[in-house]
Amino acid sequence: MKRESLALKVDGERLRVLDQTKLPHAEEWIEIDSVATMVAAIQKLAVRGAPLIGVAAALTLAREAKLGKPPQALLTSCAELRASRPTAVNLMNLLDEMRTKFETGGHDPQILIQLAEHFFDEDVAMCERMANNAQKYIQDGDRILTHCNTGGLATVGLGTALGGIKKAHALGKKIHVYVDETRPLLQGARLTTWELAQAGIPFTLITDNMAGAAFQAGMIDKVFVGADRITVNGDVANKIGTYSVAVLAKHHGKDFFVVAPRTTFDLAMKEGREIPIEQRHAREVLGNLPASIPAWNPSFDMTPAHLIRDIITDSV
Amino acid sequence: MKRESLALKVDGERLRVLDQTKLPHAEEWIEIDSVATMVAAIQKLAVRGAPLIGVAAALTLAREAKLGKPPQALLTSCAELRASRPTAVNLMNLLDEMRTKFETGGHDPQILIQLAEHFFDEDVAMCERMANNAQKYIQDGDRILTHCNTGGLATVGLGTALGGIKKAHALGKKIHVYVDETRPLLQGARLTTWELAQAGIPFTLITDNMAGAAFQAGMIDKVFVGADRITVNGDVANKIGTYSVAVLAKHHGKDFFVVAPRTTFDLAMKEGREIPIEQRHAREVLGNLPASIPAWNPSFDMTPAHLIRDIITDSV
Repeated sequence: MKRESLALKVDGERLRVLDQTKLPHAEEWIEIDSVATMVAAIQKLAVRGAPLIGVAAALTLAREAKLGKPPQALLTSCAELRASRPTAVNLMNLLDEMRTKFETGGHDPQILIQLAEHFFDEDVAMCERMANNAQKYIQDGDRILTHCNTGGLATVGLGTALGGIKKAHALGKKIHVYVDETRPLLQGARLTTWELAQAGIPFTLITDNMAGAAFQAGMIDKVFVGADRITVNGDVANKIGTYSVAVLAKHHGKDFFVVAPRTTFDLAMKEGREIPIEQRHAREVLGNLPASIPAWNPSFDMTPAHLIRDIITDSV
Repeated sequence: MKRESLALKVDGERLRVLDQTKLPHAEEWIEIDSVATMVAAIQKLAVRGAPLIGVAAALTLAREAKLGKPPQALLTSCAELRASRPTAVNLMNLLDEMRTKFETGGHDPQILIQLAEHFFDEDVAMCERMANNAQKYIQDGDRILTHCNTGGLATVGLGTALGGIKKAHALGKKIHVYVDETRPLLQGARLTTWELAQAGIPFTLITDNMAGAAFQAGMIDKVFVGADRITVNGDVANKIGTYSVAVLAKHHGKDFFVVAPRTTFDLAMKEGREIPIEQRHAREVLGNLPASIPAWNPSFDMTPAHLIRDIITDSV
């Protein structure tokens, strides 16, 4: 098995992930030498983006299988990887499928290896289909606001929301992207600007609190964001700040689109308020400010379906 | 003349301002030895907050008068100070009053000295009146969201919006303050938390993009902010991000209050769209990110009157 994406490289038993906490200052790769290393990489957001987390975790389990770990150890590894983050459902969906097929398939390690490879290829294909499906909503001249990073650093393919944007540019549509910096970890400022610059797409970085002023000034035509979990009624959990943008879009009569593969849907949850929202450490908000300052740090928020014009998936 | 506030000290010809860019890490005072030093301090936001800027500039002009500068030099200094920042109107109102009275008063330098002293005392009294007037809108148990810093670091008195909050606490009302960090310069995270901690008022810091989620979770009862300029129709220019908060408050059916002295009203402007919005350098947004990243950096935005429940002033 040999596969490469913007943020993930696998070659036989060797698995590496780009340390996204270091971007854009340095491109450092983390050598995955154990399940614990991947869990740590996911938890510190070196590996982030719901689709990428899912594939990276699956490849880590496949690596354990290649190393000849016994079935019980593989099941333990599967559970450890599954628990690494609580909100994104792709991770759980992929690992649950691996566990089920492994258990019903006589604990054949090849099942895990082939499934992980399949998930990688399927993510690339899903991104391509989402990007194509997004085109009916992106017109020449559009000025699009996006939040967080939903590109090739969040998936193993072209991306979700940013994939649609990159495809529009590749098709020759003249677009301009406004990038929310996405506090506290600045995935927009650090990662999305890096991807857009690489792709040669015109963009402008703004702080999250400038989005309202940008809408008011008529600078934004529509919003494209990704998703970490989508419930049956169409509510969407995504990076903190997404909900504020959705309210602002509604107030200004602009369309708000979510782009996500079908693996992001959680058919076990009826509505958004059931989604567990990961609370992270205050130090992410504080940076170098005194640790005595109390801070709230939910990693995600929930955007209700009525604020969303459409959810663009990989359906054909 | 001897006066002291949280961020400004004057004693005869000696004038010092607290370098607010260094808070909360260090309390360093800048010795004002020239008009240029004060203009630079205002422009780099070492001195910030519309009321404080006005009084600090007036005291700088008074210092020039004490040093015996000739009338024409004083008028030049007045113009230089007046042009230091474009959005806050207090600065212009105070300096215009000084210039007019100086010119019609036979260029007597004592006029400038006495007016500056009067502006200091008047700001303290205005803050007290605003804080008292705010009490009818602050109830025991209130959870109040605020943006930027509008306290004793933004005025020479108790503050505007934060003055009302501090007064409520002093009166024994149990309140909790949610503090927007206020990117890009983090006046909320650095300054408001510092003031609230000093006053012993319970608070929680949030990133600007968490405000929507906090409203949605029912954590916020009302919003208190300050103002940099208010037009005849009641539109308000204030720190970037204020408008987004106002839209979120409206969407969630919560009251949005502005607290500002009458000196913040610009009777020459009918509506908010006439207010010049200062554009600042991209590096404030970028921090240590590559300077090649294009960024938008308006320092203020405009909140239309229809989103504001009431403007609390120093009227008696």
